[in-house]
Amino acid sequence: MTAIDALLAANSVFATDFVPVPAGAPRLAIVLCMDARIDPIRALGIPPGHAHIIRNAGGRVVEAFRSLAVSQQVMGTEEVAIVHHTECGMQTFTDEELRTRLRERLGTDTDRLEFHTFSDLQESVRYDLSLYRRTPFLRQDIPVRGFIYDAASGRLSEIAESE
Amino acid sequence: MTAIDALLAANSVFATDFVPVPAGAPRLAIVLCMDARIDPIRALGIPPGHAHIIRNAGGRVVEAFRSLAVSQQVMGTEEVAIVHHTECGMQTFTDEELRTRLRERLGTDTDRLEFHTFSDLQESVRYDLSLYRRTPFLRQDIPVRGFIYDAASGRLSEIAESE
Repeated sequence: MTAIDALLAANSVFATDFVPVPAGAPRLAIVLCMDARIDPIRALGIPPGHAHIIRNAGGRVVEAFRSLAVSQQVMGTEEVAIVHHTECGMQTFTDEELRTRLRERLGTDTDRLEFHTFSDLQESVRYDLSLYRRTPFLRQDIPVRGFIYDAASGRLSEIAESE
Repeated sequence: MTAIDALLAANSVFATDFVPVPAGAPRLAIVLCMDARIDPIRALGIPPGHAHIIRNAGGRVVEAFRSLAVSQQVMGTEEVAIVHHTECGMQTFTDEELRTRLRERLGTDTDRLEFHTFSDLQESVRYDLSLYRRTPFLRQDIPVRGFIYDAASGRLSEIAESE
């Protein structure tokens, strides 16, 4: 049985007593890492229909521009939380190491891909806050806040924007 | 109280009896829409640590290349599920309408952004499966499957790749 087949079996049970979530007005957008250990809906107590959850490797804002613009302009969200986390896989390799791996394993040239790895976690949150602030097609008149999620304690802590 | 403050309060409770998820070997990556009504961990019964969850507006593969390459080459995932859903916001506007809205509301030129809206849901899944298949730096030797999540029933149904 593949992992996907197991999820389909679980979904079949889930759907038997499913109650649809009304299409409402989500309040905020959260940009977060894809990490397999993080369940943001549980960790942040997010009510159904409340938040757009944008996830990618590292929780990088540079790859969330399109989704944030849609979230704000089409769905009307009015806050943004950017969440990176401790023990992140994006701190364990460099762009060049991953390019080398892809060349060796798949024989492909990926020089056009940037992987947006990072070494300093607070710095990566500050960079993403600053990148948001420099992006004119994202709303600048709403709360935009950055956090680190501690994978060992489950606790969020806020990171102040750079001066 | 902002929506973010409410999430922080909820996180503070969550962290009091938090049990860390061991850093393991996730099995698969899931590409899914950011939609506020979808809780993929519940809907697919995903065990902690089991899946990278990549989410963006529409669940589009074009914006998941980087994350999928990291998931496969750094973390070793060996299956991919692409999930779009009924009642998706990405079917409710066109790229040009959103560009106009941004110009009118924020006074910004966003001609460089593509929003990857779609009208036909099955077609968008097939397109993303085909885009995956045409991407040489993603693994082609593993199961890659496409699905539609029905927001009214909670049920996944599989979409076959185009011939």
